[in-house]
Amino acid sequence: MPERMRIPKPTARRLSLYLRELNDSIQAGRVRISSKLLGDALGLTDAQVRKDLACFGQFGQPGVGYRAADLCARIRHIMGRDHGWNMALVGVGNIGRAILAYHRFQDDGFQIVSAFDQSPQIVGQTISGQKVLPMEMLPQEVRTREIRIGVIATPAETAQEVADRLVDAGVEGILNFAPRRLNMPPQVSVGTVDLTVALEQLAFEISIVRGRGTTEVGAKTC
Amino acid sequence: MPERMRIPKPTARRLSLYLRELNDSIQAGRVRISSKLLGDALGLTDAQVRKDLACFGQFGQPGVGYRAADLCARIRHIMGRDHGWNMALVGVGNIGRAILAYHRFQDDGFQIVSAFDQSPQIVGQTISGQKVLPMEMLPQEVRTREIRIGVIATPAETAQEVADRLVDAGVEGILNFAPRRLNMPPQVSVGTVDLTVALEQLAFEISIVRGRGTTEVGAKTC
Repeated sequence: MPERMRIPKPTARRLSLYLRELNDSIQAGRVRISSKLLGDALGLTDAQVRKDLACFGQFGQPGVGYRAADLCARIRHIMGRDHGWNMALVGVGNIGRAILAYHRFQDDGFQIVSAFDQSPQIVGQTISGQKVLPMEMLPQEVRTREIRIGVIATPAETAQEVADRLVDAGVEGILNFAPRRLNMPPQVSVGTVDLTVALEQLAFEISIVRGRGTTEVGAKTC
Repeated sequence: MPERMRIPKPTARRLSLYLRELNDSIQAGRVRISSKLLGDALGLTDAQVRKDLACFGQFGQPGVGYRAADLCARIRHIMGRDHGWNMALVGVGNIGRAILAYHRFQDDGFQIVSAFDQSPQIVGQTISGQKVLPMEMLPQEVRTREIRIGVIATPAETAQEVADRLVDAGVEGILNFAPRRLNMPPQVSVGTVDLTVALEQLAFEISIVRGRGTTEVGAKTC
């Protein structure tokens, strides 16, 4: 296995945003797009856009810009988005149900092909077209359906155990909605969506902007 | 209004994680906690923990550690978490319904006190105990219910307009679930939860780890 590439997370995140903007531009009938246009749409300088894209090879021509379709295809390839990704969902509570119902995932090439729960009350139900399976079927499903990503939407208490079972079954990455940190082997990629942390960060920013707590916080020492 | 404090986002994010860990420790009956214990639980060095906490004043004693309850109260105060936050949800589709059903928000002091939708089919329904209101009532509700955070769970196309209306009504921060960037005045804090971007980042990491695309990507130039 090759060494993990060291692309800074902010760059990787911007690639996602470039891709979305390019898709919108192509759908709007645009054939070429400049680094300035891309940057303006995303609140970045054109120098930043050119620098990011230059990391991955020569795409554009000075004064002419990028061919939108070529650049889009190229970024899709770099990001592993030129093929679909099969996913398994574990935990079909409120968050799990919303994830199953969220059709945009599928439009974007990410498809939940199996859903699991440990509750006998939920197993066997069909939710958003997906029949909920018992946890015992996880290894077999991951293998036969070529599932590479596990989505964890369980309570915090069971998240680590579920993650271990997903990794044992062979998934390569986990998107974790449960509010706890997962200990995973280094070759397994983990993404986190933590709604409480997101809200807390927002509350913190608002508190700072409005001046609450500033006297004690002592910004200059950080 | 004082100048916005410049706390690096990673530090701010770690404060959320410290807070969660401290809450768990206190519930488990722990009275004192060391930077090493905190660090071990979160995958950080104890030096990093001490550095982060030192930003906000003198908390701990060398060799004795922090009093868990004091440290917890202090971080809660710093983060604006020593009082509740009233929130308005706009957009009661799949994501919006999951947010309404997600009780953990409320346990953590973030409460959705009003929900809005523009669809006449949805307005008037009661969902997870919340009666959905028409958009016209937004300004009045924000004022009378002291709503400070708006949660946007609309389609991408309407997110900017909704954000503008929330800001006009007086909210100070927005948590955006819609897949598009919002243009907001600088005094408004914006948090983003973008599920597709999260998945894309994960797919990208997996692709890199597994060696797909590495030959063309040219890591060393980044």
